[in-house]
Amino acid sequence: MSRDAAVLFANDAFYLAFATRDMAAMDDIWARRAAVSCLHPGWAPLTGRDAVMESWRGILGSPDSPQISCANAQATVIGDVAVVVCGEILAQGTLAATNVFAFEDGAWKMVHHHAAPAPPPETAAAGDDAPPTLQ
Amino acid sequence: MSRDAAVLFANDAFYLAFATRDMAAMDDIWARRAAVSCLHPGWAPLTGRDAVMESWRGILGSPDSPQISCANAQATVIGDVAVVVCGEILAQGTLAATNVFAFEDGAWKMVHHHAAPAPPPETAAAGDDAPPTLQ
Repeated sequence: MSRDAAVLFANDAFYLAFATRDMAAMDDIWARRAAVSCLHPGWAPLTGRDAVMESWRGILGSPDSPQISCANAQATVIGDVAVVVCGEILAQGTLAATNVFAFEDGAWKMVHHHAAPAPPPETAAAGDDAPPTLQ
Repeated sequence: MSRDAAVLFANDAFYLAFATRDMAAMDDIWARRAAVSCLHPGWAPLTGRDAVMESWRGILGSPDSPQISCANAQATVIGDVAVVVCGEILAQGTLAATNVFAFEDGAWKMVHHHAAPAPPPETAAAGDDAPPTLQ
């Protein structure tokens, strides 16, 4: 398996754990050596494994935990770190995510997750010159 | 200068180029070897140096280019890659950003930027167990 494929496999495992509310898998997906951080949509940034795992316990244990799937994931591997950019499809709308992984003890582990609202892929106008907005 | 400090210096240089609409500095800040990507607030993901630089030319050249400053930047260095999480303060509101840098030809260069709405620092309730929302 190429390094890109291995990273995308780890990214898929993250969304599978999210969709199936599998907290044990989610815990295993996140790095234990590198410092971790997480920006959930509309939340203040979380730093440190304890805070990040607490957030996932709350999300995955909630009856409002969203159904989610990943789309259009693209990985860039730089040494032992990889950046994945992908879409997240939820019933409520579409998000875009940055997921960062580090190669740690023989496996790609998540060190950072940032998800935020983005236009759905079919209306995406990548490369237009509109200024960024807050919406 | 420690590696953390050097990364935060590069992060500050990014926001200085943004705030002063200095396209030459912005161009120099972004990596030339590693693949780059950018998620502006509410935009579809941009990948590749040409698309990312085109977006910055549009933003920095616009009369609506926002005044911006960076707050609470934290760097995590993993080998030759660094992840910075920070707040962005604009007149219109507060964003949170993920900025990823790679050590390239002796300097930290930006390979990924993702900015999206976030609560202002004074009302941030990091670590609460509210589920993520789309707002």
